[in-house]
Amino acid sequence: MNLRGVGVSPGIGHGPAYVLTVSVPEPPEGATYTGEADEEKERAMTALTRVAAELEARGNRAGGEAEEILKAQALMVEDPGLVVKVRVLIDRGLAAPRAIFEAFTKYRDVLAGAGGYLGERAADLDDIRGRVIALLYGQAMPGLPTAPEEPYVLVARDLAPADTALLSRDDVAAFVTEEGGPTSHTAIMARSMGVPAVVACPGATGIPPGVRVMVDGTSGDVRVEPAESDVADAVSAATARQVALSAARGPGRTADGHPVPLLANVGGLADIDAAVLAGAEGIGLYRTEFLFLDRAEPPSAAEQAEAYRAALEAFPGGMVVVRTLDAGADKPLAFLPAPAREPNPALGERGVRLFRRFPEVMDAQLDALARVAGEGLEVMAPMVATAEEAGWFARVCRAKGLPAAGVMIEVPSAALRAGDLLARVDFVSIGTNDLAQYAFAADRQVAAVSALQDPWQPALLDLVAMTATAAEAAGKPCGICGEAAADPVLACVLAGLGASTLSMAATSLDAVRAGLAVHTLAQCRQAAEVAREQTTAAEARTAARAHLPGLGALGL
Amino acid sequence: MNLRGVGVSPGIGHGPAYVLTVSVPEPPEGATYTGEADEEKERAMTALTRVAAELEARGNRAGGEAEEILKAQALMVEDPGLVVKVRVLIDRGLAAPRAIFEAFTKYRDVLAGAGGYLGERAADLDDIRGRVIALLYGQAMPGLPTAPEEPYVLVARDLAPADTALLSRDDVAAFVTEEGGPTSHTAIMARSMGVPAVVACPGATGIPPGVRVMVDGTSGDVRVEPAESDVADAVSAATARQVALSAARGPGRTADGHPVPLLANVGGLADIDAAVLAGAEGIGLYRTEFLFLDRAEPPSAAEQAEAYRAALEAFPGGMVVVRTLDAGADKPLAFLPAPAREPNPALGERGVRLFRRFPEVMDAQLDALARVAGEGLEVMAPMVATAEEAGWFARVCRAKGLPAAGVMIEVPSAALRAGDLLARVDFVSIGTNDLAQYAFAADRQVAAVSALQDPWQPALLDLVAMTATAAEAAGKPCGICGEAAADPVLACVLAGLGASTLSMAATSLDAVRAGLAVHTLAQCRQAAEVAREQTTAAEARTAARAHLPGLGALGL
Repeated sequence: MNLRGVGVSPGIGHGPAYVLTVSVPEPPEGATYTGEADEEKERAMTALTRVAAELEARGNRAGGEAEEILKAQALMVEDPGLVVKVRVLIDRGLAAPRAIFEAFTKYRDVLAGAGGYLGERAADLDDIRGRVIALLYGQAMPGLPTAPEEPYVLVARDLAPADTALLSRDDVAAFVTEEGGPTSHTAIMARSMGVPAVVACPGATGIPPGVRVMVDGTSGDVRVEPAESDVADAVSAATARQVALSAARGPGRTADGHPVPLLANVGGLADIDAAVLAGAEGIGLYRTEFLFLDRAEPPSAAEQAEAYRAALEAFPGGMVVVRTLDAGADKPLAFLPAPAREPNPALGERGVRLFRRFPEVMDAQLDALARVAGEGLEVMAPMVATAEEAGWFARVCRAKGLPAAGVMIEVPSAALRAGDLLARVDFVSIGTNDLAQYAFAADRQVAAVSALQDPWQPALLDLVAMTATAAEAAGKPCGICGEAAADPVLACVLAGLGASTLSMAATSLDAVRAGLAVHTLAQCRQAAEVAREQTTAAEARTAARAHLPGLGALGL
Repeated sequence: MNLRGVGVSPGIGHGPAYVLTVSVPEPPEGATYTGEADEEKERAMTALTRVAAELEARGNRAGGEAEEILKAQALMVEDPGLVVKVRVLIDRGLAAPRAIFEAFTKYRDVLAGAGGYLGERAADLDDIRGRVIALLYGQAMPGLPTAPEEPYVLVARDLAPADTALLSRDDVAAFVTEEGGPTSHTAIMARSMGVPAVVACPGATGIPPGVRVMVDGTSGDVRVEPAESDVADAVSAATARQVALSAARGPGRTADGHPVPLLANVGGLADIDAAVLAGAEGIGLYRTEFLFLDRAEPPSAAEQAEAYRAALEAFPGGMVVVRTLDAGADKPLAFLPAPAREPNPALGERGVRLFRRFPEVMDAQLDALARVAGEGLEVMAPMVATAEEAGWFARVCRAKGLPAAGVMIEVPSAALRAGDLLARVDFVSIGTNDLAQYAFAADRQVAAVSALQDPWQPALLDLVAMTATAAEAAGKPCGICGEAAADPVLACVLAGLGASTLSMAATSLDAVRAGLAVHTLAQCRQAAEVAREQTTAAEARTAARAHLPGLGALGL
């Protein structure tokens, strides 16, 4: 039996099928309660609050993409419209589980009817509804096998972030879902874990549990009980491609020897090991939020220093760029006064802006960094918009004795005035994700505007070019640490635009290293130039690829 | 008796003092209730919901700045944290008014303790608390005199947007408040109404009601029972300044005759009259939201056509630039499916993005515009980020037979790629407020980041220059319709950067016209050039002023 869906995370995965069926029974129509309406409402509210808190807590543990997604879901659970609806239904005599069921169902139908990104969010709401009702019924949520004998293929109607956030790639060989699209959470999570995935695959949950399945996350093919020889062929083809990619070992460089150090983005201690294993030459973006969020007190200087030292020791002689804490109204710190509810937290008092008002947290972080300051340590500030802010941060760092102070370029004004900023700091690092978010006024979390987030958009390439040109004029480094650097085609273009280092998820290092190794710097520059001459993202990608002939042979 | 505060809206205002004292008594400590907890909670929730709905409805009626502010307050009222706290306190036995009082007071103390912008929001919370408690007590809120014999000076501890939203400048001669700062709502509203205002004026509520007061909104002086001759002197000095300003009548032009048509921003039919009276040469930004918001069904073609015709008839031979509906998750339309809750509505599916998914609303609007299309009508789309979106909008407009289709430049990518956009449309118009919001990732509604919103920021001038240069190369007009155009110094710089028209609140037309009339285009260009050579907003302003010697004599 063969099924077909949409491949959203490349690679071949195979193993026994584990079919996840979440079946929370529908509470009977017209179900009523016996006690007081008030108590019944409290029961419903308590369940909602617990589910929201659980999603929030899982988000904090998971970090990264999963964190944003789970926190958005936690918000959904406590949506005032839903809460009021549940209370009204209980007043009309419905039992809490039925009231939850009806209120959520009505809302999800509106979403599903809207289609597109909103339609995909309906599955999230179903999952939340199931969790709340299960809690009211005292029913345990289905778990996933832990420490299986061999990695399994996880099959489901759709997967909720709450299901996938804590999975390990050691346990899961591939994902297959009946629903979802390229922008669904399953797709995003699978790519970030480096696990093959196929979504929108009708009939998948009909796969008998335990039978062997092979998943091709590139073509979208899902083969049930494949011949052993076919598995061997597919795996060896994938391995051959991997070998071709990993043939280029050693430091990142173009075919003519122009060095482009390849670094890793890390968000916790586990990521550091993965970065070393993948051959990163250092860390281009060390996100430090994991040390601070979800804690009543800030971490001690000793605890912080230990975390930073671990990174420096993992890359002796390599660079480690630590980004100071980026918190805001959407990522509040428990040990600071509660932030005001901001209408648009992404445009609010966050990153370095917050720490001009509460300098003690940043001061303590810089002190902890100064303890371990040695060969290779660089420190940079998030959300810098002006030369004045950059100058302030650099002065504070210098007063602490830190050897290198830089800023993220993720706000358009910082790219436009990169020369002014570079006059005050030692280096810059472009965060392409946020830079695109602001340059196109398109939220990273909202898939309805995701086409505007395409890092091939010529206006984004313009901002990268402005920044890199200013850095070259100043004789200072300009790194890139957004997801754009993880695309092997775009990585060549970024090198051509003048990026001095590229930092990415560790899983992307091989492909980027291989792509760079087969093109000269002149080819990269030429590809960058033709890309910027185009009007749309698609045209820019096509034009650049045509000038990077070595990618095809690598299967990139 | 003389008082002194901070002048936040210029001009001299005088009249009898009307001292607004909102005194909702503090509900007694430990007050309890007799019925069911459930009923008491319902009472509290009903009052909260009614106050939120009332704030929302006033916002919709008021439009503009007041709308955003009131809607943000409505959100505060239904803040889940507050609601939960109120419910918990009622469960502990407190009567609804006392529970509201304690929950709000706790929250306001946190805000007040934070200082700065957050501190200023504490007054809003006090006002909301008073409204909810008054409602629970069945107590009428204090009203303001309607149709007074002469305009009065409104004195208060602080003014809530709900108080000022529906005031007319025919009734109010000036505002004086004890609290508030330059970013308080009172200041913003006073400026937008063109009424003199002094804030942060200790002792103001001690002014006896009815005595005559003179308020100097430039110096911050508040004189109680001034000598008649002093009032006459101050008024005649202000009048002389006004005469100097209004000496330059007729169309906007520089001293050497370079025409810069001066247009008005309007958001409703009343604004059209004000624009005509102030000598506007047309409308540079006709916001059409007032026709659509807060309605169960979209307005008919006939109703729309009538509104558009009123504008065209008011300016025979002048231009009228209509912006198509700008709605989004924060300004939902009742007749479309409820939008998803977006984490950052300003970065979400709004403006033209929304109408690619629901084309029927925009289609109907363009049809209504086509009915009245004649000499002078131009149509533009909000929130355009790419050339592809601009091309789509222009094609739709042309298919409807509309004579001129343009786009707002308010997203940085649109400014960066203005040349690509201009190849597809007939004109562009820069919205400096939103352009600054996105370029600096600084929310217009959050005063903590308001320094980044300064339109003198050199990076914003860069984006204006890029756009104007591209427009000049394409031989097409580039208007400016953000608040930046209302600053007479900056208006000269914008003309120097190449803006072909300037559009602003009608109250600013005289000063801008006068400022332009005393400088040559070469002086404006020189001022623009030196401004762009600076690094900070303050330096840019100072440098530009030094090259615009005629402003001082005008008192600008």
